[in-house]
Amino acid sequence: MNVEFINPFLTSMLNVMSTMAQVELTPEKPILKKGVEAKGDVSGLIGMVSPEAKGSLSITFEKKLALGAMHNMFGESPDDINEEITDLVGEITNMVTGGAKRLLSEKGIEFDMATPMVVSGPGHTINHKADGPIVMIPLNSPLGKAYIEFSFD
Amino acid sequence: MNVEFINPFLTSMLNVMSTMAQVELTPEKPILKKGVEAKGDVSGLIGMVSPEAKGSLSITFEKKLALGAMHNMFGESPDDINEEITDLVGEITNMVTGGAKRLLSEKGIEFDMATPMVVSGPGHTINHKADGPIVMIPLNSPLGKAYIEFSFD
Repeated sequence: MNVEFINPFLTSMLNVMSTMAQVELTPEKPILKKGVEAKGDVSGLIGMVSPEAKGSLSITFEKKLALGAMHNMFGESPDDINEEITDLVGEITNMVTGGAKRLLSEKGIEFDMATPMVVSGPGHTINHKADGPIVMIPLNSPLGKAYIEFSFD
Repeated sequence: MNVEFINPFLTSMLNVMSTMAQVELTPEKPILKKGVEAKGDVSGLIGMVSPEAKGSLSITFEKKLALGAMHNMFGESPDDINEEITDLVGEITNMVTGGAKRLLSEKGIEFDMATPMVVSGPGHTINHKADGPIVMIPLNSPLGKAYIEFSFD
């Protein structure tokens, strides 16, 4: 898994969160996940399929960041994770993956996206079960942390 | 979403759990999920893509059922959800979806599968964000409950 492949997902995540929710994320160095757990409270997940490879992507948010992003967008937010928040997280996941898909398509790498799923539950963790390495990028912001993770066969 | 489409997923789930883990599941009537939350402790999730439709599937287990299935297969199981258990849940998710794929293919309905992801965390819930209705099938067993859910655009 090389940088050419990682950057489109990172670029797209920073772009979506900045333009959609006015959240400026500061990425840490991407790491190959191995025994490292990204714990969060709400996660968007999506499957990816191409003739060459299959994979999955997840974006995990701390609750305070998800609620803060909603507040930035609409001027108000619920007190807890509800269907409005899971809809937002599903939409962000779709947009980030779609943005990466466009950037990779320019390099001749094509894939199809499944539909997003959103998990909610305090302190849950995600395990990607593709055969390839799992890339994890921790992202910091004044509102809280997020983690983008993806893996391909 | 008609019965012709639901039955292959149910048949495959019952078959995989029976042959792989000697767990005989008793299905309840499939319901269209709307405000119903399947809470569980470990879930396998997978994306599906076809030229006609996209979707997602999840299988959510109570912890005691996941640990019991592992015990039936290997004569022992860990005390808590660990990587062995998430590997097993990922494998079950892959096999159930693959079985439904074969059954649907016989009816001329084709789709590609992404790679599975596994979520762990006590009492988490899953939201499928495809546009179509969400079918949920609760499944009972002496070892605990499971829920299979899927949705297509």
